[in-house]
Amino acid sequence: MPVSPIQTYLEQLHARHAKEAAGRVADYIPELKLADPNWFGICIATHDGHVYEVGDARQPFTMQSISKPLAYGMALEQHGEPAVRKRIGVEPSGDAFNAISLHPQTGTPLNPLINAGAIATCGLVRGRTADEKIAGILDTFSRYAGRPLQIDERIYHSESETGHRNRAIGWMLRNFGVLEDDPTPTLETYFRQCSIQVTCRDLALMGATLANGGVNPVTGVRAIPQAYVTNVLSVMATCGMYDASGEWLYRTGLPAKSGVGGGILAVQPGRLAIAVFSPPLDPQGNSVRGVAVCQDLSTELSLHLFDASQRGTPVVRMFTTRRNVTSKQRRPAAAMERLKGIGRRLRLYHLQGALVFASIEQVVRRLMDRSTDTEFFILNLRLVQGISPSAAWLIAGTRAKLAEMGRSLVISEAGIWWQALVDAGVPREAFFSDDDFALEHGENFLLERHYPEPHATDRVALGDCALFAGMADAELAVLDALLVRQTYARGQSIITAGHASDELFVITAGSAMVSIPTQDGVARLDALTGGMSFGEIAFLDRSPRSANVTALSPLECRVLTRAAFAQLGSDAPQIKIRLLENIALGLTRSVRQVSRELAALK
Amino acid sequence: MPVSPIQTYLEQLHARHAKEAAGRVADYIPELKLADPNWFGICIATHDGHVYEVGDARQPFTMQSISKPLAYGMALEQHGEPAVRKRIGVEPSGDAFNAISLHPQTGTPLNPLINAGAIATCGLVRGRTADEKIAGILDTFSRYAGRPLQIDERIYHSESETGHRNRAIGWMLRNFGVLEDDPTPTLETYFRQCSIQVTCRDLALMGATLANGGVNPVTGVRAIPQAYVTNVLSVMATCGMYDASGEWLYRTGLPAKSGVGGGILAVQPGRLAIAVFSPPLDPQGNSVRGVAVCQDLSTELSLHLFDASQRGTPVVRMFTTRRNVTSKQRRPAAAMERLKGIGRRLRLYHLQGALVFASIEQVVRRLMDRSTDTEFFILNLRLVQGISPSAAWLIAGTRAKLAEMGRSLVISEAGIWWQALVDAGVPREAFFSDDDFALEHGENFLLERHYPEPHATDRVALGDCALFAGMADAELAVLDALLVRQTYARGQSIITAGHASDELFVITAGSAMVSIPTQDGVARLDALTGGMSFGEIAFLDRSPRSANVTALSPLECRVLTRAAFAQLGSDAPQIKIRLLENIALGLTRSVRQVSRELAALK
Repeated sequence: MPVSPIQTYLEQLHARHAKEAAGRVADYIPELKLADPNWFGICIATHDGHVYEVGDARQPFTMQSISKPLAYGMALEQHGEPAVRKRIGVEPSGDAFNAISLHPQTGTPLNPLINAGAIATCGLVRGRTADEKIAGILDTFSRYAGRPLQIDERIYHSESETGHRNRAIGWMLRNFGVLEDDPTPTLETYFRQCSIQVTCRDLALMGATLANGGVNPVTGVRAIPQAYVTNVLSVMATCGMYDASGEWLYRTGLPAKSGVGGGILAVQPGRLAIAVFSPPLDPQGNSVRGVAVCQDLSTELSLHLFDASQRGTPVVRMFTTRRNVTSKQRRPAAAMERLKGIGRRLRLYHLQGALVFASIEQVVRRLMDRSTDTEFFILNLRLVQGISPSAAWLIAGTRAKLAEMGRSLVISEAGIWWQALVDAGVPREAFFSDDDFALEHGENFLLERHYPEPHATDRVALGDCALFAGMADAELAVLDALLVRQTYARGQSIITAGHASDELFVITAGSAMVSIPTQDGVARLDALTGGMSFGEIAFLDRSPRSANVTALSPLECRVLTRAAFAQLGSDAPQIKIRLLENIALGLTRSVRQVSRELAALK
Repeated sequence: MPVSPIQTYLEQLHARHAKEAAGRVADYIPELKLADPNWFGICIATHDGHVYEVGDARQPFTMQSISKPLAYGMALEQHGEPAVRKRIGVEPSGDAFNAISLHPQTGTPLNPLINAGAIATCGLVRGRTADEKIAGILDTFSRYAGRPLQIDERIYHSESETGHRNRAIGWMLRNFGVLEDDPTPTLETYFRQCSIQVTCRDLALMGATLANGGVNPVTGVRAIPQAYVTNVLSVMATCGMYDASGEWLYRTGLPAKSGVGGGILAVQPGRLAIAVFSPPLDPQGNSVRGVAVCQDLSTELSLHLFDASQRGTPVVRMFTTRRNVTSKQRRPAAAMERLKGIGRRLRLYHLQGALVFASIEQVVRRLMDRSTDTEFFILNLRLVQGISPSAAWLIAGTRAKLAEMGRSLVISEAGIWWQALVDAGVPREAFFSDDDFALEHGENFLLERHYPEPHATDRVALGDCALFAGMADAELAVLDALLVRQTYARGQSIITAGHASDELFVITAGSAMVSIPTQDGVARLDALTGGMSFGEIAFLDRSPRSANVTALSPLECRVLTRAAFAQLGSDAPQIKIRLLENIALGLTRSVRQVSRELAALK
């Protein structure tokens, strides 16, 4: 398996920081002192579950404080936000990790990531006994990691034997009524929670679960409701790195949490997670190598969330009026002439990228600016990569505003964004499967509004058919005798894609549609009316039919068979020459039209 | 002018919150008490400078603490980060806005947004006198706002007369050596800085300047170097809302700063800024309506930066092997047959959206996974909306890794991202103006590697030309006499777009290219070799030539003039019929090819 350049980059990063000798392994719990200061692992897990790992990525260690934000998420899920917020604040304390930091008036812990807040959180986690509580915590944390996690019993006993300060905090919380019972089971739960064993790889996947909106991307199992993910990340951002939280956000711009076991977990929401494991700690209790690695990653990979250098790119990729792009609906010459005059009143916009407030705002602004001289707007969403709820209701709201002014706004190629727009109030009739149908609808809208009287559509004489242009009456009489007359009912299939073919059709009355099946239904390739012909290509190159043709109304055709065509060559070569010239002329028109569409798309 | 639905939304938001009666106008400075508690303005300014405004958006008020992060940016610019960080920290204090909050050991203020830090910042701003300092501050702040700002002298005097606590802080800073001289000029500068008058609209544009990377989007004038914008936003995120900063980030997820004048400024980096003005304050000193409005805006417009619901969308829009898409380079049948066998070893990927680490990682992963069975990769960047430095060097790094393995990676349609990739180390020869040229290069690469012996290209007899297929020797002799022989040098123009045309060309030796001029150079529409014909379309429909044709080698053609073609109709109708059939067949091939390309693009 070839080595990814990302893997190579991480190995270089690891080598660069492995030399760092500063920091001291935590010693306030005897068992933690046993950690090897040379252990050093780096992992990046993507929101879709791919893990890059370097160094001691599979060495087990205890989560310690990294468990706190995840337990906080459990409390939010089990009790709802208001109940939790009554007992635990979300303000950074500015104090060291082991400070008691209770609110001077209420006695509530300032935030869930200092010990006092984490113990209060443990008090909220459901379970009548310490065993029930820790079982729930282990279950949830295992969902985050995507594998069953266990407690390091030796660390737990060491924590429990030396956790006097935390017992003091527990009794202070009991004193203020933040804990309602004997704090002992809660404290034992807390000690065990801190002693849950993970690897650097586990930690990265736990972060990827947060980055992925609460679902472990490998197992597909939800660990926390999406609604609470933002809350968990927010407290990590302001309080995650003890009294170096400000410095951390300043340097890396990522929500994160560290533990005195030497782990650090950082999350780029919606994108990825970084986990680093290296036991030597700085005076604030954060892994020295972990902090340095995350700072380098943030800078070198441009992960800082407040980096304004990635400014919004134009959301409108292409816009055009009907002067440049028209529907495939062929219309009588008079109607086409009318549309030339009013076609500017139709505008087509191709949007791209993620539609969030800041990008849809640009679209809304353009549409409203144009609403004075434009009557029909089409938004094509083919290149759209996401729609936020606000973008959806702003599209619906703009449509409503335009409707008040007698303007129409329709959506083309909504694809998977259809449901979000319907939910936001865009009516079903405003959706079109492609620009062609939307353009036709817009052309009809303009014609009906500006020229309310309808157009007559009559039977077409053979001499008025494009295929027979320039023929003398005698020649037309020969053809009239040669061409078979066939009629079709509305909706009847005339040609089926894939079938063999030795007929060429000329429409003398009615209309038909050339289409191919697509994922969303059908795409119309061409619309045909009296005087037009179809089926030339397969007729000429003897290939199977490449598209379907269906009658849109009662249809009358004149049919030229291949046998009759061959016959003409010997009986009336001048007629055949004229016919071939007209066929070739029609084909040049097709080439030009398709090429124009191709150029417009590019 | 029609009313935007965004304007309507903001008016409803304003009306909803105007009823709020809680909070007290600041009274610790006598002049501030004069503010009308009913004043209430909301503005949103986009990163491109459009401002939505509702309510008292043009009522002047004083910036107060909102001035602090901007002054901090000036100190960073004037002294560099290390020098500033030696005197002022970036940790949230957890204390109220007027707490002294100096670091217990060093005496340095915990962060630049508490009064002590802001006064220390003022001490760093350049200028020998208070007048020089404030002139510099006014100049910079005016660049942010895009108009000349002034000081409210009455507020300034009121601040100065009652600023005893700040004087105490000044002398404490002098005591610790954070301020090096008599603090009085610095304090007077600070009082004036707090008294700079702005409107809600000004504030929004100042925020838009930060959102836009430091350049005022209306005037185009830079207010702060881009490198420091992230720093300013980071301290706003952790310390901007006094001792409600944690709560603020939890609820809104946006860097922000409030002032006791009633203003709040929040920034969505790269996107937009929100400014609210409403004098009644909550106990933390933040505008009551301002906080509520920003929370609603963040929720309703999905602005929270830690919201993981907008997960990354696929960066690879389309990928295909050469089996589905081939270059327009026509090759001898033997070469085409060879390519059929090895064409799978070429892969074309169309990327879309912003290429940042998390998205390019997906591409790198796919390429490395495929490097075992693929020898030539093309990345098309036509739909790419941005490239971060890390994405650029990862593309360059992947290319280098693949090269080590004997694989080739080229870039098609790089457009404006070309420079970033060249800077990252992608060599110039790896860029192609479109997929067609990149595909041809890939096909040549595969052919040369797998079939090192060259192909012979000889003169083509008339009977082997597609246009004369199926003709008898006698017929060919007639044509041989009729067709003019013409030769062209390499690089010579044969057909020029826009020119009139009554000739049809058949190549009997050499090769030529059909192209149209584009922004990036030329786009090749077709490549022609011996036996092929060109110029049919304009020859048939008598339109001007639609493209250029240029000789790629010494070229020999046989030319059919329109006069000779007409002559054939009477002298040799069977030849003309066969000729027309062959022309029509060629056109059907063109229609099919262009249609296939169109389908691939859609």
